[in-house]
Amino acid sequence: MTIWTLGPAGTFSSEAAQKLFPNETLHYAANFDHLFSELEKNDTAIGVVPIENSLHGSVHEVMDCLFTADVSLWKVHDVSITHALGAQSAEGITRIASHPQALVQCRSYLAKHFAQAERFPVSSTAYALKLAAEDSSVAAIAREDAIEKQGLNILARNIEGENNTTRFGIISKKDPYPDTQRTRTSIVLHPHEDRAGLLHALITPFKVYDVNMSKIESRPTGQQLGEYLFFIDFVGTQNDPRVQKVFEELRDIASISVLGTW
Amino acid sequence: MTIWTLGPAGTFSSEAAQKLFPNETLHYAANFDHLFSELEKNDTAIGVVPIENSLHGSVHEVMDCLFTADVSLWKVHDVSITHALGAQSAEGITRIASHPQALVQCRSYLAKHFAQAERFPVSSTAYALKLAAEDSSVAAIAREDAIEKQGLNILARNIEGENNTTRFGIISKKDPYPDTQRTRTSIVLHPHEDRAGLLHALITPFKVYDVNMSKIESRPTGQQLGEYLFFIDFVGTQNDPRVQKVFEELRDIASISVLGTW
Repeated sequence: MTIWTLGPAGTFSSEAAQKLFPNETLHYAANFDHLFSELEKNDTAIGVVPIENSLHGSVHEVMDCLFTADVSLWKVHDVSITHALGAQSAEGITRIASHPQALVQCRSYLAKHFAQAERFPVSSTAYALKLAAEDSSVAAIAREDAIEKQGLNILARNIEGENNTTRFGIISKKDPYPDTQRTRTSIVLHPHEDRAGLLHALITPFKVYDVNMSKIESRPTGQQLGEYLFFIDFVGTQNDPRVQKVFEELRDIASISVLGTW
Repeated sequence: MTIWTLGPAGTFSSEAAQKLFPNETLHYAANFDHLFSELEKNDTAIGVVPIENSLHGSVHEVMDCLFTADVSLWKVHDVSITHALGAQSAEGITRIASHPQALVQCRSYLAKHFAQAERFPVSSTAYALKLAAEDSSVAAIAREDAIEKQGLNILARNIEGENNTTRFGIISKKDPYPDTQRTRTSIVLHPHEDRAGLLHALITPFKVYDVNMSKIESRPTGQQLGEYLFFIDFVGTQNDPRVQKVFEELRDIASISVLGTW
């Protein structure tokens, strides 16, 4: 099996991919666009990508790729992530370096204990550890074992917010698990035109046919500030006649893209 | 006037603040939590923060701070931002460094011209330029004049997506412009409980009283994956009797926090 994830080795994505496919060799993509284009080229390749974090919300770059690429979401896995803080010593810390996602996940801890420190986003926790090893004013957020391996001291453990879980999606062009029973669907609605009451009109069919929406997010169309696409998750699949009814009514006001059923 | 913005000098926020308040000295916050806590301490201090980008959507860290801090949004300004790509030469580029927001704003260009290059998020465009000056395999996304000042060559201009506009908010504890006529309101709804049809119930009062919602975004409560707060923008203010009716009905199902009227 060909498994693609966001590289380099040691990213949260690659750790999750290794956990989910322990016996496979991972292929590392340089960025999410690269990852999706590799999956588009190879029907049997599978990607493991973060789609949502319990503290920080959707990973928009991935959602945008799912919307534009000919690749679908087929399964999700929730993975718990814990972070520690490492540095040469606890004295004189003025910058906290880590991957941007890790920095926001540890926001409460940092606001309390390092209120005046600069948050320094870098491309990976590995690079953050390198900075901390070179400069005693830098502390890095990373995994406990990675901090120890770098020869740094652990200043604090479990500094992420409570219940820090990241949902990873298994994505590919063709369904890798055709025999799976699925219960949820993710779609994007692109309204034909903006008008008063649009949002209510988009949601009403779900109410009428008793299809429960679990999530809605407006995302810019990229054309103009204030024009939006709507990313929606609901309980049900396209095999369900009630869902088919909802889609029928929605098509009058918006085009529908199905991102996946999971 | 005391103006706070995200430091260090040269961030997009600080450029916008300088444009909006050309005669004032800027105070630089180390991070958004720090900025909001300074505003909470000083009634007359004003902050300039990015709240939404036309290509990449809401700046969630700022929205989360607005929700939790005793600071409100009073005015918005849309600022156009253009990016250029600089490096020692066009040969052998394997990494593209910049601020995470700039990287996502230039996604289409990078996918087309540097598909296999690693995207390397760093804390500022200034730091990205420093990396590019030290390492010929790194190209940096920054302002044209900053690239030239660093002694690097400009590989491409205007590489952001079309219509790249960032909306900056003027925030403070007390209204700095009490005589302004305002037309829009931003609120957060925190549902008392999750249940089927919740979203429809939250939106129906807006429809009934003909108050036009322009934006809705579910954001995690931070408690558990799948539990959401709803960030909503609508046309109207709390002085409007129809808006008061909407709020009355909403209070049965959710608590309401007003982020600001602008």
